[in-house]
Amino acid sequence: MTRYFPEVEGKIPYEGPASRSPLAFRWYDSERRIRGRRMADHLRFAVAYWHTFKGGGTDPFGPDSVYDRPWSRGSSELEIAENTLDAAFEFFEKLGIERYCFHDRDLAPEGSDVAVSARNLARLVRKAKAKQQETGVELLWGTANLFSHPRYTHGAATNPDPKVFAHAAAQVRRAIDATVTLGGSGYVFWGGREGYSSLINTDMRQEREQLASFLHLAVTYAKKRRFKGRFFLEPKAKEPTTHQYDFDVAHCLNFLREFDLLDHFEINVEANHATLATHSFHHELQAAADAGKLGSLDINSGIEGVGWDTDNFPFDLRECVCALLVVQTQGGLSHGGLNFDAKVRRGSFDTLDLFHAHVGAMDVFARALLIVERMRSDRVLGTAGKLVRERYAGYRRGIGKRIMSRNVTLPELEEYALRAGEPDLRSGRQELLESMLNDYLYCTTIE
Amino acid sequence: MTRYFPEVEGKIPYEGPASRSPLAFRWYDSERRIRGRRMADHLRFAVAYWHTFKGGGTDPFGPDSVYDRPWSRGSSELEIAENTLDAAFEFFEKLGIERYCFHDRDLAPEGSDVAVSARNLARLVRKAKAKQQETGVELLWGTANLFSHPRYTHGAATNPDPKVFAHAAAQVRRAIDATVTLGGSGYVFWGGREGYSSLINTDMRQEREQLASFLHLAVTYAKKRRFKGRFFLEPKAKEPTTHQYDFDVAHCLNFLREFDLLDHFEINVEANHATLATHSFHHELQAAADAGKLGSLDINSGIEGVGWDTDNFPFDLRECVCALLVVQTQGGLSHGGLNFDAKVRRGSFDTLDLFHAHVGAMDVFARALLIVERMRSDRVLGTAGKLVRERYAGYRRGIGKRIMSRNVTLPELEEYALRAGEPDLRSGRQELLESMLNDYLYCTTIE
Amino acid sequence: MTRYFPEVEGKIPYEGPASRSPLAFRWYDSERRIRGRRMADHLRFAVAYWHTFKGGGTDPFGPDSVYDRPWSRGSSELEIAENTLDAAFEFFEKLGIERYCFHDRDLAPEGSDVAVSARNLARLVRKAKAKQQETGVELLWGTANLFSHPRYTHGAATNPDPKVFAHAAAQVRRAIDATVTLGGSGYVFWGGREGYSSLINTDMRQEREQLASFLHLAVTYAKKRRFKGRFFLEPKAKEPTTHQYDFDVAHCLNFLREFDLLDHFEINVEANHATLATHSFHHELQAAADAGKLGSLDINSGIEGVGWDTDNFPFDLRECVCALLVVQTQGGLSHGGLNFDAKVRRGSFDTLDLFHAHVGAMDVFARALLIVERMRSDRVLGTAGKLVRERYAGYRRGIGKRIMSRNVTLPELEEYALRAGEPDLRSGRQELLESMLNDYLYCTTIE
Amino acid sequence: MTRYFPEVEGKIPYEGPASRSPLAFRWYDSERRIRGRRMADHLRFAVAYWHTFKGGGTDPFGPDSVYDRPWSRGSSELEIAENTLDAAFEFFEKLGIERYCFHDRDLAPEGSDVAVSARNLARLVRKAKAKQQETGVELLWGTANLFSHPRYTHGAATNPDPKVFAHAAAQVRRAIDATVTLGGSGYVFWGGREGYSSLINTDMRQEREQLASFLHLAVTYAKKRRFKGRFFLEPKAKEPTTHQYDFDVAHCLNFLREFDLLDHFEINVEANHATLATHSFHHELQAAADAGKLGSLDINSGIEGVGWDTDNFPFDLRECVCALLVVQTQGGLSHGGLNFDAKVRRGSFDTLDLFHAHVGAMDVFARALLIVERMRSDRVLGTAGKLVRERYAGYRRGIGKRIMSRNVTLPELEEYALRAGEPDLRSGRQELLESMLNDYLYCTTIE
Repeated sequence: MTRYFPEVEGKIPYEGPASRSPLAFRWYDSERRIRGRRMADHLRFAVAYWHTFKGGGTDPFGPDSVYDRPWSRGSSELEIAENTLDAAFEFFEKLGIERYCFHDRDLAPEGSDVAVSARNLARLVRKAKAKQQETGVELLWGTANLFSHPRYTHGAATNPDPKVFAHAAAQVRRAIDATVTLGGSGYVFWGGREGYSSLINTDMRQEREQLASFLHLAVTYAKKRRFKGRFFLEPKAKEPTTHQYDFDVAHCLNFLREFDLLDHFEINVEANHATLATHSFHHELQAAADAGKLGSLDINSGIEGVGWDTDNFPFDLRECVCALLVVQTQGGLSHGGLNFDAKVRRGSFDTLDLFHAHVGAMDVFARALLIVERMRSDRVLGTAGKLVRERYAGYRRGIGKRIMSRNVTLPELEEYALRAGEPDLRSGRQELLESMLNDYLYCTTIE
Repeated sequence: MTRYFPEVEGKIPYEGPASRSPLAFRWYDSERRIRGRRMADHLRFAVAYWHTFKGGGTDPFGPDSVYDRPWSRGSSELEIAENTLDAAFEFFEKLGIERYCFHDRDLAPEGSDVAVSARNLARLVRKAKAKQQETGVELLWGTANLFSHPRYTHGAATNPDPKVFAHAAAQVRRAIDATVTLGGSGYVFWGGREGYSSLINTDMRQEREQLASFLHLAVTYAKKRRFKGRFFLEPKAKEPTTHQYDFDVAHCLNFLREFDLLDHFEINVEANHATLATHSFHHELQAAADAGKLGSLDINSGIEGVGWDTDNFPFDLRECVCALLVVQTQGGLSHGGLNFDAKVRRGSFDTLDLFHAHVGAMDVFARALLIVERMRSDRVLGTAGKLVRERYAGYRRGIGKRIMSRNVTLPELEEYALRAGEPDLRSGRQELLESMLNDYLYCTTIE
Repeated sequence: MTRYFPEVEGKIPYEGPASRSPLAFRWYDSERRIRGRRMADHLRFAVAYWHTFKGGGTDPFGPDSVYDRPWSRGSSELEIAENTLDAAFEFFEKLGIERYCFHDRDLAPEGSDVAVSARNLARLVRKAKAKQQETGVELLWGTANLFSHPRYTHGAATNPDPKVFAHAAAQVRRAIDATVTLGGSGYVFWGGREGYSSLINTDMRQEREQLASFLHLAVTYAKKRRFKGRFFLEPKAKEPTTHQYDFDVAHCLNFLREFDLLDHFEINVEANHATLATHSFHHELQAAADAGKLGSLDINSGIEGVGWDTDNFPFDLRECVCALLVVQTQGGLSHGGLNFDAKVRRGSFDTLDLFHAHVGAMDVFARALLIVERMRSDRVLGTAGKLVRERYAGYRRGIGKRIMSRNVTLPELEEYALRAGEPDLRSGRQELLESMLNDYLYCTTIE
Repeated sequence: MTRYFPEVEGKIPYEGPASRSPLAFRWYDSERRIRGRRMADHLRFAVAYWHTFKGGGTDPFGPDSVYDRPWSRGSSELEIAENTLDAAFEFFEKLGIERYCFHDRDLAPEGSDVAVSARNLARLVRKAKAKQQETGVELLWGTANLFSHPRYTHGAATNPDPKVFAHAAAQVRRAIDATVTLGGSGYVFWGGREGYSSLINTDMRQEREQLASFLHLAVTYAKKRRFKGRFFLEPKAKEPTTHQYDFDVAHCLNFLREFDLLDHFEINVEANHATLATHSFHHELQAAADAGKLGSLDINSGIEGVGWDTDNFPFDLRECVCALLVVQTQGGLSHGGLNFDAKVRRGSFDTLDLFHAHVGAMDVFARALLIVERMRSDRVLGTAGKLVRERYAGYRRGIGKRIMSRNVTLPELEEYALRAGEPDLRSGRQELLESMLNDYLYCTTIE
């Protein structure tokens, strides 16, 4: 089995919280049963093909790849693509992760024209399908890279040139095909350059209408292809553009409602994209869940005070607990999962760093799951917890109930206010709740 | 006429661009005709009653008023309120401004209970009505202060306690009454504390539903009162709360669509609130206009790199031109206007500073108007300008037209892309357009 | 003993990690010995008098106090001040905290002139001294409020008017006296309004020179008064001003070096001020420690994505661990301590919330201390840990050693580079180190 | 002459403010005399070789060049380098710009080892020298690219590996040689990756000491080479690293003071780097000028609300006026100049866009210069203007003078404050000053 990752022999084992081995799990125990389901089925982790296998550690001040990946060598782009796929599945198996996500151009190189690109992709999809059958690894979701090629500089669906729109349509068609063939349970639209550099040369209304057409055409096509999965729209506030049209969850929902697309989409919420919009990950997840549209998660993290997408691996337990609390409260993820969309730092040169990063991040989410399940069985925190439920109890009876059903008028409420007099000031107990949350985070009996 | 502002004798005159008098207009000439309308009717400036007459120059590190306003003296709160109203109308007349905006609690003090508060307000409204008739000054819009009183700490409509909701309803009822009585053409809902301090003790879905009920009740009431004006929702990203539900224009539109309120509301876009959401003012205005919902503007400005609402007076011509370009392209403001919502700096201690601030800011918008009209007659810039129109021409014919009508499929587009080959890369000419804009901003023949 | 806090009977007990009582410590055990010192002596916690006893939960949109504190009632300002002092010491004892910090105006009200203000302060200082002797509670540091009074609007030491400078000098003189009398081990200069609203009316060089004079005069005075404590300068980036001269640690150090004050000052680093400067708390602490100038800490926390000083209580263990790692690596704090400078949220109306907040925050720092001590005995993390030490080992021998002693030339280094050839790329192991840190944070055997 | 820019025939002419030609100057008239000096000699514009000739329009989401530059074709890297140099000088002459700036690796490709790199550079320097003599164009400053090569991932001078330090030293040695040979009046140190990704694996004190050694070695070498120009240190807050050691002007000054380098360095202040540190460009310039260390400027601009370095061309007149006001008040720039360090947007695909960008930006600075000179002859604004001078007049006499000379004590000042009583509150007139500034910006008689 060893070929690209000889430094890791066999599968990363679960060794429990006391382990100090850098190549073992302390908390992630895939087969552990939690409320009747495997831990792995609760968490549905996925590796991001682009960062983990195609990333070069590049940045705006260092355009050349700094990693020397053995799978990136080969006599042709297609051979490199096949080597990369082999490396990816070796990595999945050794890590013990059961899902992955890809862009079309991660898997197979762009060809000299639309037809050649489609053939390249089909070839790699056949190989990936065989690999999946061989290993049991599944595709979580697929997507199309509509931002790297120079033609997409002014946008893909939102490009002022319909020819560019057509190229984007061609890519999405084949990326949907690939997703269907590989049994992906989701398909993601992240609007790479669907935004503007400056309003001075932009017709925003026109561009958003183009985007709506694009998504409608994709919905129609997917139905025809009998795609059984879900479409996910992924918000991002800015970067590479000054303003991305899918700025955050609310912008996406507004767009979907405006253009009658709400029934066809759920949201894929990314942690670092949330913070670029000055929201917390928790907020964006809750906003999506409240609309019944939380479909999938990209579980990276940003750096406070840094204004671009850093896609760090997640290591912060509190953030993971808040995220999973939203997910578990809504009953889990049917078609989505936890895709890392994270990259090791430029200076983490070794393939071994890819393992350290994934192992550490899977572990922190695994501990988070145990904590969330304890919190839920204790019914203390979260929107379904007792304290929050009781806080709003007044709206489930009497005048509150009439307010919620809009079965009251302003003058009636004025009379009520006059009679009721000045309301008592009731503490929101925020500090106590933070301490209670800490009791769970650092609990020494959760193992 | 002189009573509170003896340092300004009579009305601030228009003296033209060469003037260097600090108490004269260089550009604002209210009666100047532009496309058949008075400059004043294009701009519809309004003074913000709260900042200009009730502001104390306070901040979190200086809670005591630093201004010694003669109108803030009196033997009772009601007497002070009446003095303040006198001062306000003296200021309006000397400044030559034709509109104002207020909160209920700016005009009249809160009473010992709901009924007393309503009586206080009614009394001052009668006096204001008389003043309006006497001077010809109009009310642009009214609103209710649902954030200063301790009872609103956890929100007004979104408060966990229905009693607080009822108090807020009582205030809005009377504030709508006041607006109707005074002939206001708008009524604004700014969600002062409609947001959360922390998600840890919050049920965001519940709170947003409460807010929807509140707005529906207000709509019903206003209809009954035969309010002929418009309801405006005003976005703000954060402050005082960590997250305000009306975060930005798109959040507001999403909310209005979700709760079937879109037909009843337009948006009041504030410059400084736009930048708190990391948007430009231009962006937020365009987003509202694109949805057919740009109702009114708060024309203050923030400070780049500063993370709270500073409500500076606007002095930046480029920003004013971009704002008015959106407004004039949509055909102006029928019911809204340009409300300053700006305050002089804490260290601008003198009442004279109130004049300097308003005069300077009115002037920059007046010059902006002249520039925008020149640009529009030249048909060069903005979404209706030639360059932008031509950029998207491909969507008004052939394949582009089919895309817009969604009368095409992904496979057809793929075939088209294959035939059409690689699209040409066409420059967006952003730098040229910026220079062209500068040609207008510094044009020496616009006077 | 019960008078102002009847809801808390006696002293908050230590009950250990398994406790779920909201009025007990899980981790903070003041008498526990760690490397021969009491936990309390390692942590040197202090209550911030202003937030905890004088705070009203006010903010820019709610200027009136929302708390009904029994100690804020009284027939005169001086009586209220005395009641407040009683309440404070009752709180210190029940909380089991051993230090506090104050501004002159927290302790005693401003009088009708400079002399009366001095007398008021002296009176309360006498009472505080008696209370300290009675309870054993100590003063960590004192300071003067040079920002709330209207006269300080354009700054105190940096005010364009020397009369204001003189008033500030008068306050500092008496605040130093008070600190000496009460045995404070530190005195803090936080430059409340020492900055500018706009450069357009400011001579920054002049103002910084004034500030330097001010600090020199204070140093001279303190020597004369035989003050045995330390002077601390406290950085803040902005708010209330657009730019504060003591922007961050490096700005403070630059200022101290420029004006020959470095020998007389150490730095008091505040967590929320660090994040307002877009730094991490960890960074600012390390920057101060690296210069041998880390004197004291304000251990509050901000909210990511929020641009003003929120002064939340700290609950994030990772941040606390990083902070204490810097502190313990430099050998602790001789004259400073951990001052909370944190306030409960506006909606935490009850005096009980003051206990919840302090107990929860003391606990997270106590657990952090245990973790840091474990890390230090394992010698793994931090600048003194093995991994970091080894990373720079090349500079302790051969060419690296010559570089550090500057005993080499560029041409010699060029020759060396030519001979040595292309350096190997060595991983920085950032992800592994994050996982190792998590092993400590969630370690179930640290109790 | 036409070879790479056939679309521009001959030199861009000055046509005056009324011109609407996109290839003519409205304000920039190089030979116009202002206070006895050519406009060109006041402004000392320089083209940034890297962005204008080597930039590909790439970004993190589009790693491939989108520009089809005729000079980027050739049979070898050296041939391309020579073609690029030809194109550059053709561009300089057609634009009528008299200076340029470069990195070593812009001019000549990195070779297989240190010696080959040095030979490549020397070859291109010879050609550049000939071109300079032929055209009269001068080198403003040179620098070394110590950030793009993978070896510099963990820093150059601050790298944990002394071998990397040696490679950086080798580059700087040859870049200084090149600068001397080409008669550059400055040499810039911008600390590309001199900072950290995370403190978790970093010894910041050690790294800053390495950086100090590096700069000392460079100073020693430059003296030996009899370099007559100036060394400039260029601050940047973050990007690509999480924290750059040269965060802003104050951080640089602190570093220079700490390591006894202040006499050898001035500061090169970049507009977009200022805003990344949440400062204004004006602030950073003033901070450098106040320390007598404002050496040179990078005159690009950022986008408000965007958190990475966008390096837009500058078009904002107010910002240009504030910048030049600081420069002219300190008596101009002896060895530095106005380097654009700006790039056209990714979507500005054409070489013509390079002209539009430079022409527009030179024009706005030229108008700014005319305005600043008018302001200075009127003596109204800026730190040398009457209003600001008078504001601080109290410190040039009496008690104020004693304060400045520190010839007074705190008790004496207390007595003075007691006698003087409460100071008057004097307005800072910020709004009036903003209006006065606008009078200059939009003045129709400045032509």
